[in-house]
Amino acid sequence: AANKKLLFLPGDGIGPEVMRQVRRVVDWMDRKRKITFDVSEGLVGGAAIDAHGVPLSDATLAEALAVDAVMLGAVGGPKWDNPTDYTKRPEAGLLALRKELGLFANLRPAVVFDALVDASTLKADVIRGLDILIVRELTGGVYFGEPRGITDIGNGERRGVNTQVYTTPEIRRVARVAFELARKRGNKLCSMEKANVMESGLLWRQEVTKLHQEEFQDVELSHMYADNGAMQLLKNPKQFDVIVTDNLFGDILSDEAAMMTGSLGMLPSASLGAPDADSNRKALYEPVHGSAPDIAGRDLANPCATLLSFAMCLRYSFNLDEDAKLIERSIQNVLGGGMRTSDIMAPGMARCSTTVMGDSILREL
Amino acid sequence: AANKKLLFLPGDGIGPEVMRQVRRVVDWMDRKRKITFDVSEGLVGGAAIDAHGVPLSDATLAEALAVDAVMLGAVGGPKWDNPTDYTKRPEAGLLALRKELGLFANLRPAVVFDALVDASTLKADVIRGLDILIVRELTGGVYFGEPRGITDIGNGERRGVNTQVYTTPEIRRVARVAFELARKRGNKLCSMEKANVMESGLLWRQEVTKLHQEEFQDVELSHMYADNGAMQLLKNPKQFDVIVTDNLFGDILSDEAAMMTGSLGMLPSASLGAPDADSNRKALYEPVHGSAPDIAGRDLANPCATLLSFAMCLRYSFNLDEDAKLIERSIQNVLGGGMRTSDIMAPGMARCSTTVMGDSILREL
Ligand SMILES: CC(C)[C@H](C(=O)O)[C@@H](O)C(=O)O
Ligand SMILES: CC(C)[C@H](C(=O)O)[C@@H](O)C(=O)O
Repeated sequence: AANKKLLFLPGDGIGPEVMRQVRRVVDWMDRKRKITFDVSEGLVGGAAIDAHGVPLSDATLAEALAVDAVMLGAVGGPKWDNPTDYTKRPEAGLLALRKELGLFANLRPAVVFDALVDASTLKADVIRGLDILIVRELTGGVYFGEPRGITDIGNGERRGVNTQVYTTPEIRRVARVAFELARKRGNKLCSMEKANVMESGLLWRQEVTKLHQEEFQDVELSHMYADNGAMQLLKNPKQFDVIVTDNLFGDILSDEAAMMTGSLGMLPSASLGAPDADSNRKALYEPVHGSAPDIAGRDLANPCATLLSFAMCLRYSFNLDEDAKLIERSIQNVLGGGMRTSDIMAPGMARCSTTVMGDSILREL
Repeated sequence: AANKKLLFLPGDGIGPEVMRQVRRVVDWMDRKRKITFDVSEGLVGGAAIDAHGVPLSDATLAEALAVDAVMLGAVGGPKWDNPTDYTKRPEAGLLALRKELGLFANLRPAVVFDALVDASTLKADVIRGLDILIVRELTGGVYFGEPRGITDIGNGERRGVNTQVYTTPEIRRVARVAFELARKRGNKLCSMEKANVMESGLLWRQEVTKLHQEEFQDVELSHMYADNGAMQLLKNPKQFDVIVTDNLFGDILSDEAAMMTGSLGMLPSASLGAPDADSNRKALYEPVHGSAPDIAGRDLANPCATLLSFAMCLRYSFNLDEDAKLIERSIQNVLGGGMRTSDIMAPGMARCSTTVMGDSILREL
């Protein structure tokens, strides 16, 4: 079989150093496992602004559209904090990738590793064993809705507008992904919006209910207002299995859930497009954490989130569940052995660098 | 001096029974303190739908506009869950009150009472002594923006739209309230939006920065993206003093902060309008908790949030800081004595009813 094509976009801050550890795992797979990869590399975010003046060049976008999967590190940093021109922000590169690749379903697991229960600010019994999956809509809503912009309205006053908009097909396709994932897990789906205040949320609720009736009656479906969702996540997170929500609520609620685990440096994500005729789908994988400019280049970052994102890549893009589990188990074993990067360091554990964490995980593999 | 005018809108569910305890405190004040009140009562929410077919009648709105302050219990319940007609929902009554009274500044303290530290799902050392104030914009943004609605777009498909919109005067007036409150507290303000994705958020950030430059340079101002805000609240809530944010982010973040305290039944809120020529402002006070239909009418609800809302009423509408403190201290003392309604019950404490909690607080006064 031909080699699978991967595009690496390390991006900014700690992106390149955590991606380097993924590169090592890819090399190991090329040698030891049934699959082989062709890896190309490109620039995104601030790095691309520095090189090309834009956060995502046409050539890099074309490459992203051509490969089997994209692995991204992180984007952004104070150097590129351009408060006025949206097209010149590192984030714009990431948003363009999501939109142009049609990555409408963003999978964000919030999982608590046994070895890291104490890292959370929540009580251990509230979060021990937590394993929820947030499915966030990623190419619609207020992130991309038109009209948008800032206009002068006279008297030196201005008006800022964004548009929250969803169509029924947009709601259905992401809900479908969530229902299907729920079936493979605890068979429970909770949909979150503000149907009591927003018509777009009401449409969301109606359409999720309809799809449930039509095709997923075996899955237990509930609905929750997003503000109550933010509370219930804190009160009793284990009541949830899969959560589906829109782009903006998903941004906030998935970050809340991520921080609840206490280990942002451990959390991966997958962003998936629609399957084509051959059941292949465009996909991008990235850690949930940001570019952490404060520790960039110092071999301090935790590579686990990015390695676990690569495990998701193996699972969702290449159907290699066994290889994915191998990586996941290796990371668990290394944690079980007491190895910790600074972000998850705890009394009695061994503090290690990014590279040494990578060494240990490779040794486990 | 003429009596001050209060309108009581007990609303639905546990609303009437918690408001009854406020009535007792008002009676006590009439007898014992320097101020006297004229209290009228009206219907809102489901109760108003049952009586008049609308969640807020014109007569009740007129009364609300005429009084010095409105005290509200709670609205909503499964009986009135009308998923399609927005104007026939209990929530519509509350939203209309906010809009028609011009209550643009919603003050939501998230305070942890020493006696209740263990009620939180967060670790005690993370939240002990927590005292933050969230100022939520309440009459703008996506809650009220036009265009809005659901339309057919052909092929059996539909489209749901809401509009997020803020003008510079809307941003300034709520930011001003937040800056002024910060000055009376820890002198720190954090403004939250998604300026990296939404132009309305960018305008928000620019205008808050401008107002800071112009009038509040003595207050320490920071900005945070709302998703990061959701994380930072969990990671280290005590880093915050006052937070200012828009209607929708405020809805979610204030509920997150409220649940972090572990004692929703203890949290009050104030919604304030602009001061008129005599420095009077329209105002509505309500507990943060909802109508809790499951325990309604059983004398189980915690009246403290509503009593503390009345304390805010004394402070913000009538400048009676001493009387407000009296109520606050009485509640603290009763808690200190081990009295607990069911929602905050803990081992070794004495479980009591709504009425008995009211009795004890009155005795303390
Ligand atoms: C960087 C930013 C544009 C992005 C978002 O808001 O979606 C980030 O917060 C995320 O969640 O991936
Ligand atoms: C009841 C509902 C309309 C309301 C809101 O969304 O503002 C509530 O959640 C609140 O926070 O007061």
